[in-house]
Amino acid sequence: MRLSKYFLPILRETPKEAEIVSHRLMLRAGMVRQQSAGIYSWLPLGHRVLRKVERIVEEEQARAGAVQLLMPTIQSADLWRESGRYDAYGKEMLRITDRHERDMLFGPTNEEMITDIFRGYVRSYKDLPLNLYHIQWKFRDEVRPRFGIMRGREFLMKDAYSFDIDKEAARHAYNRMFVAYLRTFARMGLKAIPMKADTGPIGGDMSHEFIILASTGESEVFLNKALLDLDTPAEDTDFFSDLTPIVDAWTTPYAATDEMHDAAAFDAIPEENRVSARGIEVGHIFYFGTKYSDAMGAKVATSEGTEVPVHMGSYGIGVSRLLGALIEANHDDDGIIWPASVAPFHVGLVNLKAGDEMTDAACEDMYAKLEAAGIEVLYDDTDNRAGAKFATMDLIGLPYQVVAGPRGLKDGVLEVKNRATGEKEMLSPEATLNKLVAALTA
Amino acid sequence: MRLSKYFLPILRETPKEAEIVSHRLMLRAGMVRQQSAGIYSWLPLGHRVLRKVERIVEEEQARAGAVQLLMPTIQSADLWRESGRYDAYGKEMLRITDRHERDMLFGPTNEEMITDIFRGYVRSYKDLPLNLYHIQWKFRDEVRPRFGIMRGREFLMKDAYSFDIDKEAARHAYNRMFVAYLRTFARMGLKAIPMKADTGPIGGDMSHEFIILASTGESEVFLNKALLDLDTPAEDTDFFSDLTPIVDAWTTPYAATDEMHDAAAFDAIPEENRVSARGIEVGHIFYFGTKYSDAMGAKVATSEGTEVPVHMGSYGIGVSRLLGALIEANHDDDGIIWPASVAPFHVGLVNLKAGDEMTDAACEDMYAKLEAAGIEVLYDDTDNRAGAKFATMDLIGLPYQVVAGPRGLKDGVLEVKNRATGEKEMLSPEATLNKLVAALTA
Repeated sequence: MRLSKYFLPILRETPKEAEIVSHRLMLRAGMVRQQSAGIYSWLPLGHRVLRKVERIVEEEQARAGAVQLLMPTIQSADLWRESGRYDAYGKEMLRITDRHERDMLFGPTNEEMITDIFRGYVRSYKDLPLNLYHIQWKFRDEVRPRFGIMRGREFLMKDAYSFDIDKEAARHAYNRMFVAYLRTFARMGLKAIPMKADTGPIGGDMSHEFIILASTGESEVFLNKALLDLDTPAEDTDFFSDLTPIVDAWTTPYAATDEMHDAAAFDAIPEENRVSARGIEVGHIFYFGTKYSDAMGAKVATSEGTEVPVHMGSYGIGVSRLLGALIEANHDDDGIIWPASVAPFHVGLVNLKAGDEMTDAACEDMYAKLEAAGIEVLYDDTDNRAGAKFATMDLIGLPYQVVAGPRGLKDGVLEVKNRATGEKEMLSPEATLNKLVAALTA
Repeated sequence: MRLSKYFLPILRETPKEAEIVSHRLMLRAGMVRQQSAGIYSWLPLGHRVLRKVERIVEEEQARAGAVQLLMPTIQSADLWRESGRYDAYGKEMLRITDRHERDMLFGPTNEEMITDIFRGYVRSYKDLPLNLYHIQWKFRDEVRPRFGIMRGREFLMKDAYSFDIDKEAARHAYNRMFVAYLRTFARMGLKAIPMKADTGPIGGDMSHEFIILASTGESEVFLNKALLDLDTPAEDTDFFSDLTPIVDAWTTPYAATDEMHDAAAFDAIPEENRVSARGIEVGHIFYFGTKYSDAMGAKVATSEGTEVPVHMGSYGIGVSRLLGALIEANHDDDGIIWPASVAPFHVGLVNLKAGDEMTDAACEDMYAKLEAAGIEVLYDDTDNRAGAKFATMDLIGLPYQVVAGPRGLKDGVLEVKNRATGEKEMLSPEATLNKLVAALTA
């Protein structure tokens, strides 16, 4: 993409309304624009990252056997009256009356609707296990939206719902999502720690939050250092094998949010292994048994022919929120430092003298070759000042920068900068291409 | 994808509520489920087609220089008060009051918001031309939603907005979208004819509807047969060259919807070239000059330093509606006949004797090889009856079916069926693979 034909509205000033670093950087880097309190447009750069995050989520959901569909944003209140949540949900639900005076709402979550879909079609244990998910915009009318897209009102969530014949099968469905989540966040370069969460009135031990560690995180967390050294489950993990060993490995060492913290248990950890840190919740998985299937009559026939309510779980990932978490975990004073897997582009190519024949030709050549290699390039072909170009590239945080100017080109070299380490090398065009292909393509 | 692990709720009965063939087939093929009047869930098969259609739209928008972003669904009423449309829009606008009693709405279109984004950042002619687009769910509270997703309330639309320094540049922006639309619909296997549309109070000749010809179309259209023989603009069309010759070629022969029909002009066409047919609107492009930029103060500095309101156009494609149009244009008595470019899967692989060692092995082998070749396969590995399997495959309309049974395998052959032509061949596994790779991969 040529910057001259792109839309990248960089802000030179730090916006006053932004309280946290990810919000500041997203505004400054032209990733989002606030349209109303807690409601954002995703400008082209932000939209690209959102899509990269979505793709990783989708690939890992598919690997774990979840099937994608898409439910609408607007729901009928009737479904929520069936489950009893219409009155219980309170003011966070955006309630709407349509032209025929029917009560509707903008979905804050989809347990009711997915249960309705399930009961509409599925009759037999033979159709189980089933996990259906979608990635859709949700609305929660927060009384005080803040932290940019981290606590917005309109936000993008992946929510999956599992359906199983009994609790044992549901536990396996739960474990599949548990493992999928470990892989999903790891692929984004994030260290996500599952922490036991409150299961509320249902009880039991089947609810975990996935918390990203970031020094600017929203809440305090406590964990055993051993968790930081665990390996991510491999790509070829068989999701339909027994996943208990993986789940046990990740849930045995102590880890808890402030809310669930047990100081005595934490103190029992050898002191050198006690980590207290800041965290950001990016995922939450939950087994809730027959809560909705009982209320809404979602039953299946067992192999013996009796009808039983289906056992369900739900599994959320805050897709838009993840962009904030990614920036909280990956930035420095100059701007964002994207992990390659979610970077809006892989390489920023800077032409230091647009209009100069030799520089233009070197840039065009490098641009064409990188794109042909499947590397996504943002090519700054504008006539802005060099200093502004460098500042923009550091701010938007692409993994590599390639700088071409008349001085270097006289010696046959380009400057290649690694945004994360700051390391700079002067390389021939051929060596530049080889280096970037090796670093950025699998 | 193995059917045993998929969610494909086929309806054997024809749903009574469906008035038109695309609605009937989408319900029967398990593509959509109605959740409220005019509001649908996109079940896995329907969701896959929606995504294929989106990808083609995105690729052609990018080719024409449009840049993708994403605006939110919920908008502030204040923006619409600025343009004067808040009161003018009527009951089709879904109006919402949030918890702080602010007037909001579910966006039926985005002229106001995109103008707000533009005026927030762009100051100079140097940043033009600019075309920003998104693909987002819209809501229009139709008094009587019908025809399934063809006239739903919550629908997916691609809307692009162009910004130019003057009318001449805006005409070029308009032509780029005109050409992009010809390519977009052609890639979906559709014959789309641009027809002059009413420009309302603004006047001029810069508004066209793109109409798909389908015998079950919603409205009557009239055209010169010459339009059916025109070539689609090539993939390597230079969108920043003069596109007038292409636009002229497509707009000179007579073509009009019922509304704009000029019987005298039509009668002037040689009789053998007069075509009257049924059509479905799938796109609409529109130049509206400074209507919104005047009202909302979206100005740019010219090269002479004076400030002028920016010239705008908007360009819509009914993405979800296209699925209905595609089915109206591509079906027979047995079901849907998907063009390969938008088919949910390319091949349906039917195991006639699941559990039989030789048949299972042949199917697994073919499944693995097709997937490795980049061909998307829906593998019916269930133990349903053969008749039901064939009926389902015909109904969901994948371009090819490959049928494996013990009888054929004894002779070393599979049956390969072309869904569109009905042609069947008995081929060795190797010949099957070669044929499908040749037919389905570019």
